[in-house]
Amino acid sequence: MARYLEDLRAGQAFESKRHTITTEAIVAFAREYDPQPFHVDADAAKASFFGKLIASGWHTAALTMRMLTEAEMDLAGGIIGAGMEELRWPTPLVPGDTIHVRVEIIESRASKSRPEIGIVRARVHALREDGTAVQEMIANLIVPARPA
Amino acid sequence: MARYLEDLRAGQAFESKRHTITTEAIVAFAREYDPQPFHVDADAAKASFFGKLIASGWHTAALTMRMLTEAEMDLAGGIIGAGMEELRWPTPLVPGDTIHVRVEIIESRASKSRPEIGIVRARVHALREDGTAVQEMIANLIVPARPA
Repeated sequence: MARYLEDLRAGQAFESKRHTITTEAIVAFAREYDPQPFHVDADAAKASFFGKLIASGWHTAALTMRMLTEAEMDLAGGIIGAGMEELRWPTPLVPGDTIHVRVEIIESRASKSRPEIGIVRARVHALREDGTAVQEMIANLIVPARPA
Repeated sequence: MARYLEDLRAGQAFESKRHTITTEAIVAFAREYDPQPFHVDADAAKASFFGKLIASGWHTAALTMRMLTEAEMDLAGGIIGAGMEELRWPTPLVPGDTIHVRVEIIESRASKSRPEIGIVRARVHALREDGTAVQEMIANLIVPARPA
């Protein structure tokens, strides 16, 4: 049962499946989208700010999106981001990490100018098994109102 | 000549190379990271909120990162994002679009707790040839202070 705007309320939470990240996946993403030494070369990474190979934050963000599509949120119309606030990577994603995504609805409001849609604000965390966050953000999602 | 914190001032701007996006690239990214109908299937996309195939916003973000690494900004230590504010996709990236990235330094300040680094705030736009934005954000970058 797809959820419409009217089905979403502050305090509701959804969880995704878990995903384990490999060195190979980190390097493959970074070679294409963020080819900096600390993302593509374990030896060079030792001399960097981070001191070790870490995933690009944009890789963490892309994986977070993938896990959002696998969460049981099931929004009518799909997951459509109008924008993100306060996107942060509190600790870097590293090879062997297993993460999942937790979504908490903050607010759900109808659009004044377009009654067929609304905006849902949600806090999205990507978390390791020990609960530390590799990504945090507030997502503003466009969700259709239930058809009359 | 790599730029240190002291070399960056409000008003400085940097531009990247241009990049043209294909349907194949949009679909390949989305199959892995954002497999929703409006990103992977041109026919299904016609019935979606967008009415056409568009790139995942996270693909646009990853391409923006790639173009940042190709801009002539040349930060000492690399491009290290502490976090992003107000990440938005004002218009969707679609097949055939040619985009580039423009970075404008807003502020550069030393860290009080860690004198060896500072934070540079920069407005980052990914722009089509006609000047319309496919992505906007404010990046908070960690930049090393010039060694004594």
